Amino acid sequence: MTYPEKLSEIRRQMSADGVSAYIIPSADPHISEYLPDHYKCIPFVSGFTGSAGTLVITHDFAGLWSDFRYFEQATEQLENSGFELVKQKIQHAPEHITWLISQLNKGDTVASDEKLVSVLLGDLLTQQFSLKGINLVSKDYLSPIWENRPALPSEEAYLIADEHIGESVSSKLASVRAAMETKAADYHLVSSLDDMAWLFNIRGKDVSYNPVVLSFALINQDHAKLFIAPDKLTEADKESLLKSGVEVYPYEEVENALAQIPAGKRILIDPKRNCFAYAKLLPVSVMIIKDTNPSTQLKSIKNNVELANTRTAMRKDGVAITKFLKWLANNIGKIQITELSAAAALSGFRAEQEGFVGDSFNTISAYRAHGALPHYGASEESNAEVKAESLFLVDSGGQYLYGTTDITRTIPMGNNTEEECTDYTLVLKGMIDGCKARFPKGTCGYQIDAITRKPLWDYAINYGHGTGHGVGYFLNVHEGPQTFNPTATPVAIELGMITSVEPGVYRPGKHGIRIENLVNTITDVSNEFNEFYAFEALTIAPISTKIVKKELLEAAQLKWLNDYNASVYEQLSPFLNEDEAAFLKEETKAI
Amino acid sequence: MTYPEKLSEIRRQMSADGVSAYIIPSADPHISEYLPDHYKCIPFVSGFTGSAGTLVITHDFAGLWSDFRYFEQATEQLENSGFELVKQKIQHAPEHITWLISQLNKGDTVASDEKLVSVLLGDLLTQQFSLKGINLVSKDYLSPIWENRPALPSEEAYLIADEHIGESVSSKLASVRAAMETKAADYHLVSSLDDMAWLFNIRGKDVSYNPVVLSFALINQDHAKLFIAPDKLTEADKESLLKSGVEVYPYEEVENALAQIPAGKRILIDPKRNCFAYAKLLPVSVMIIKDTNPSTQLKSIKNNVELANTRTAMRKDGVAITKFLKWLANNIGKIQITELSAAAALSGFRAEQEGFVGDSFNTISAYRAHGALPHYGASEESNAEVKAESLFLVDSGGQYLYGTTDITRTIPMGNNTEEECTDYTLVLKGMIDGCKARFPKGTCGYQIDAITRKPLWDYAINYGHGTGHGVGYFLNVHEGPQTFNPTATPVAIELGMITSVEPGVYRPGKHGIRIENLVNTITDVSNEFNEFYAFEALTIAPISTKIVKKELLEAAQLKWLNDYNASVYEQLSPFLNEDEAAFLKEETKAI
Repeated sequence: MTYPEKLSEIRRQMSADGVSAYIIPSADPHISEYLPDHYKCIPFVSGFTGSAGTLVITHDFAGLWSDFRYFEQATEQLENSGFELVKQKIQHAPEHITWLISQLNKGDTVASDEKLVSVLLGDLLTQQFSLKGINLVSKDYLSPIWENRPALPSEEAYLIADEHIGESVSSKLASVRAAMETKAADYHLVSSLDDMAWLFNIRGKDVSYNPVVLSFALINQDHAKLFIAPDKLTEADKESLLKSGVEVYPYEEVENALAQIPAGKRILIDPKRNCFAYAKLLPVSVMIIKDTNPSTQLKSIKNNVELANTRTAMRKDGVAITKFLKWLANNIGKIQITELSAAAALSGFRAEQEGFVGDSFNTISAYRAHGALPHYGASEESNAEVKAESLFLVDSGGQYLYGTTDITRTIPMGNNTEEECTDYTLVLKGMIDGCKARFPKGTCGYQIDAITRKPLWDYAINYGHGTGHGVGYFLNVHEGPQTFNPTATPVAIELGMITSVEPGVYRPGKHGIRIENLVNTITDVSNEFNEFYAFEALTIAPISTKIVKKELLEAAQLKWLNDYNASVYEQLSPFLNEDEAAFLKEETKAI
Repeated sequence: MTYPEKLSEIRRQMSADGVSAYIIPSADPHISEYLPDHYKCIPFVSGFTGSAGTLVITHDFAGLWSDFRYFEQATEQLENSGFELVKQKIQHAPEHITWLISQLNKGDTVASDEKLVSVLLGDLLTQQFSLKGINLVSKDYLSPIWENRPALPSEEAYLIADEHIGESVSSKLASVRAAMETKAADYHLVSSLDDMAWLFNIRGKDVSYNPVVLSFALINQDHAKLFIAPDKLTEADKESLLKSGVEVYPYEEVENALAQIPAGKRILIDPKRNCFAYAKLLPVSVMIIKDTNPSTQLKSIKNNVELANTRTAMRKDGVAITKFLKWLANNIGKIQITELSAAAALSGFRAEQEGFVGDSFNTISAYRAHGALPHYGASEESNAEVKAESLFLVDSGGQYLYGTTDITRTIPMGNNTEEECTDYTLVLKGMIDGCKARFPKGTCGYQIDAITRKPLWDYAINYGHGTGHGVGYFLNVHEGPQTFNPTATPVAIELGMITSVEPGVYRPGKHGIRIENLVNTITDVSNEFNEFYAFEALTIAPISTKIVKKELLEAAQLKWLNDYNASVYEQLSPFLNEDEAAFLKEETKAI
């Protein structure tokens, strides 16, 4: 079936039901960022494969709402699909709702599959639509027209090894239950897969890049029920869970369990990380307490075992990056290197490392002008040859059994323009100011964001993405609650949180530059004014100084750069052969 | 009646009514910061005269909840009053509610005069208390025991002169009504006195420092009713208002007007700037839309007439400051100068300026260790002699018919210690970074706050107050919605907003340093990355360079300092006599 045929099939069903508009979000019942094939609805309907977007279909319009990161990709992929790109002004803002309200009339009905709608979005839709007398119903118009729709993943799941844990399931459940008590919650539904993975020390292979497994949990003070496809866990793992007080039930059973919660009870549900359909399954007399999952905060603060293991992961990742940089330097101009072949080579170097599980996201291997697309993913069609000139931006990461990495280096390939050198130096200034920030306890991400952007703002430059995101421990490369971005998100940066620092400059048609390290929050000075925190650089990989305009760096920035590179050599060289160590010595020499 | 006698009289009334706790906030029915004498309840009951605090009285405890700014003052003033100081952790946080909940039992009753309780606080009290089964009632226990309670002020009010306005009342009403329409509000109640003053181009003398007049307004699409004591306005002013579509009614009539709003109507009320008692007067069928007053945002964006006039006010204020600095320099060590006599001298120099109305707040004239109390107010008892050594912090401002000023200078008096010189330079670095910030359109105050604090954080120093506040136009020296502070307040800094930049360092027992300018937001570069904004320095007064450690300043900071001082000389010298100009030349010479 072609995309236009699918569109008319959907409209046929809408007409039959008297539905005026159909909304297709990018989500699954766990409100995941990365989706199992079964839930890749937007690619199925429109051909668009970006990770953020919403389709809205009316009888005379079909559009994809997506943000600037995907404007180019969407324009290309939506050609002849019947869908038009609607450019969002603000990332993730529900701008399609405002549009729908302007198009619809009192008494109209809007449909969506409410298993793919977060409670937050569902509440917003209900509220906005009810003001205008528009009805909202749940419909799945895709299954009837989706021949051979992929089944739910049947990959195995497993409990993470003891030496990689740092905290038992019982202890984690106790913390969650304590948090439930402070909110007077009798029950707590967990749907988000990274929270599930952390809480039950469980990992799986159900989606790309994130080592998670489709599952739900329903917790009260006496029971912790884990809902998961029965053949995903070994009997030994099930027994181990039972010893921690976790009862295993079939995946679909969660629906009954929700419907059977006794009248008058209170249930804690994270509106951003649970689906609207399941919230609606609850008996009306059950009171919903809408708040962030307690595990989100607990998970973000890494324990000492997790931090020690992460440092190992970072060292191994740094060795792989060094080997990759050397391979690139040795082979450029000699063999044909493309964005895809370079990304494959890098994956190969990571795969040589013990405990490597897979990439932590789709490598952004972006040469020259492709670097100006912050979320570029090279395809067979776009695949550019990497040459001995301009800049090559590589943003990549690995999942190891003992940690998750995420690193961006922008590699000067030779013959760089003045503008490339200046932009590179300014990004580096921002990245260094973020990494060497000292800040009082209680400081939030938006403050670190401002400090990182200032050196770029001084030169009238800005970047359209956040400065940094939380990173999981052998888990999702994006996790909350902390974030370094300009929005007013009042989440304090706590000791043990792992966050990225990754400012950039993007000049469409020319080049893109981003330099990224992961940092851990550590204690610094305590004095009469405050308890101050600082960042430990977790990422261990050389930062090229080849095109740095030294005169633009402040003394403290230059010192940080030279100290960092010296420390990279010191930490990685014992794990390199002589040639590699010599290469790294040169890459990390002080300027 | 002594304070303990008043306390027992209040408790007697509480007992008679079966009330377990009585709350006395610092407010009036307009939820003002500065109060008419009639509403100075906390000083009457406890003797504490600070501008922020809450009294809570139970049968076995009486406490003043206040923040670090007032710890010293409160400790002194509460001695033998029967009240204890309870130190708030967070400024303005309702920490007394948590304490009350921990003390009271189901079925207990808490009373307060709900005319002095904001809608926001009232909602919070209701919600928190209802969870524990505690009742909330409105009682005024002060009037019965307050002999000769001061009457409401009967000062005259007046319409501001045409050349000082920039926008007519009709035009302002039209903007407010447009904002009401977007919120589908049929009515809008305005209680806050600075909003009233702006909206009706009216000024008065009802409270200290703020040129406002006690009044309310009730607005719908057809009527704008102004409630004000009838003899405050001349017939001419009333006629002028009527021509702008404003009907004048007696002050107390607002209560009836609220009670008579037709069933089913929607009224817009700012929960922070209206009293709980009046919200309760509304018929139950009237729906309250709780949102910020539209005039708050409109008022914060100064029009061109207001900006031009403010620049004149700043020039006159700078002349007064220069004369004051010269007087201080010439007389120190020759005549006895105290904190109070210096403040009086400064007021005198301001009073020489045409159009001066009065101080815009109680001058903080704080010598040496007194400077370490950020909101110190010199009294006859505390009044220190200013000597030719250490630092003298003077934070002051004037109300002119054409603008409001607010400026802090910390004056090196001689023989300064290394620590004083370093601290002074670091505060200056922060102040300069804030003032010379370039930032993309959409930037919020917390981002400017972080940029201003960074130079201090780098040296492990912080300050406990915000970096800056909005400033009115011949109106309150503190106004919203914008604020430069670390909290997540998502208010963008718009063109034409006037805000202060005033970082500080406070070393208890030693010294305090704060340097403050007011800035206007102006356009800067626009390019492929964004539209950038910057700040215009509005304050025109020399910044002493005597104890600046030049080696701690970055080149760009030094340039800003020298350029600023040069511009101060250029702008002020035409209005100074020869001696004064020579003094200013020396004070502003480049370093």
